[in-house]
Amino acid sequence: MDRSSDITLPPGGDWPEFQSGWVWLAGAGPGDPGLLTLHALSALQQADVIVYDALVDSRILGWARPGTLIEFAGKRGGKPSPKQRDITLRLIALAQAGKRVLRLKGGDPFVFGRGGEEALALVDAGIPFRIIPGVTAGVGGLAYAGIPVTHRDVNQSVTFLTGHDQNGLTPSKVDWAAIARGSPVIVMYMAVKHLGQIADSLIAGGRDSHEPVAIVTDATLPTQRVVETTLGDAADTVVRESLQPPALVVVGGVVGLRSSLNWIDGTAADPVALAARLDRRDQLSG
Amino acid sequence: MDRSSDITLPPGGDWPEFQSGWVWLAGAGPGDPGLLTLHALSALQQADVIVYDALVDSRILGWARPGTLIEFAGKRGGKPSPKQRDITLRLIALAQAGKRVLRLKGGDPFVFGRGGEEALALVDAGIPFRIIPGVTAGVGGLAYAGIPVTHRDVNQSVTFLTGHDQNGLTPSKVDWAAIARGSPVIVMYMAVKHLGQIADSLIAGGRDSHEPVAIVTDATLPTQRVVETTLGDAADTVVRESLQPPALVVVGGVVGLRSSLNWIDGTAADPVALAARLDRRDQLSG
Repeated sequence: MDRSSDITLPPGGDWPEFQSGWVWLAGAGPGDPGLLTLHALSALQQADVIVYDALVDSRILGWARPGTLIEFAGKRGGKPSPKQRDITLRLIALAQAGKRVLRLKGGDPFVFGRGGEEALALVDAGIPFRIIPGVTAGVGGLAYAGIPVTHRDVNQSVTFLTGHDQNGLTPSKVDWAAIARGSPVIVMYMAVKHLGQIADSLIAGGRDSHEPVAIVTDATLPTQRVVETTLGDAADTVVRESLQPPALVVVGGVVGLRSSLNWIDGTAADPVALAARLDRRDQLSG
Repeated sequence: MDRSSDITLPPGGDWPEFQSGWVWLAGAGPGDPGLLTLHALSALQQADVIVYDALVDSRILGWARPGTLIEFAGKRGGKPSPKQRDITLRLIALAQAGKRVLRLKGGDPFVFGRGGEEALALVDAGIPFRIIPGVTAGVGGLAYAGIPVTHRDVNQSVTFLTGHDQNGLTPSKVDWAAIARGSPVIVMYMAVKHLGQIADSLIAGGRDSHEPVAIVTDATLPTQRVVETTLGDAADTVVRESLQPPALVVVGGVVGLRSSLNWIDGTAADPVALAARLDRRDQLSG
């Protein structure tokens, strides 16, 4: 792994010292390394050990200082993932050994990321910690798909939910009828597996089966795919298009804004695509 | 303003070139400059003009390259804020004049930030643009208050809503009964002004008036204040404590986790506070 030691943080900022025996719980953002925060970069530069999850990009880990121990704590291939308890025990052991421990998670640690559980375990063990929030995929990932999670003509509220509970089942404590009626826009994390059941619940709760849905895989990465469908056809779309996790699913009128706001094609290095996009605009406005 | 020209971005990242005549719409995060993303820093270093909002910290603007034109487009003092239309026309005029225009907003541009509207206006004018998501205050600001927006024992969904509409009134299109029943945790932006009416609506919709609420002002900044109250007493608390915008309001069981997760006191430079915190833990666990 290419590790760099010549990274500097901007002057005049408040860059806390990463003290021995502390754990910093940080979000790495949705994927694109450019969405990392400066505090997370500062943490990478100071940590003795980094314990990271599956959704953290290897280019981000490449910004650790030379000699940093880097440990993987997510799912890999078909192998079972380490149990949450094993991960927290490892964080505690490393901190008690006097290490500066960076726990790096995809997205934001407090948005369906189990960061709260890990932090509570640190509290119980008397380990001091710091939280470094990150750009959550449900906002930043959808922005890269050209979909704003709010727009004043569409919604004054947005609901984020997880598509499975800690046992991998459909979330059991969700009042689907209320969720269906509550927010015009619903953003779902890890929802591909149970999407049929979730979509049925939302339709039973009053959502229109023709309502627009977008499914975004590998959000913000060069491999990002965006498939537009409807609530009624969403589960079949997953199968037909062979969509694989990690994926975001968004339901609601903001999906329709993508036809205008799909900026990522315009920023691609391909001038032909850009010209075609501008032509399209001219035709639309002409 | 102290402008720095010796900022370098980490090697090996994909740092797009900011082309003339483009607008980059970026989020600056909730306040703490350390929560800025690397893409936003890259934008600051390349922009010819920065058009920023009230909630963008001056230390962030200090990271612009020397000679950058910096324009304010938010509310200041008692003066009326520029109309949204004036701001978008200004962005378009600057881009048409061949400038690299950075539109910098607090938080994330697509979370109640009117970024969608500004982007659509750019599309209509044929101006190419890029979106740089940011850490949204409803997640990152609450993390600095020691409150995770999700915790698996509390909620499998979280709803974000704006406390006023584009006319400054209570949001008119919100189904309060459904919102009240939909998510165990509700995070409100700009909700201080109408908090009494909103709390009444949530209680009428079935929420317990004794439910815990936290109000966070100046989230992530050194001036951050966190006041815990209940849904029934929230509006009176605003008056009693003289709480001023910008403020976040969070309703739900995650507020109770703050007694354990209030890490910001532990990271303060004051060793006495840290020792007291560890003592408290020993007493709790002893």
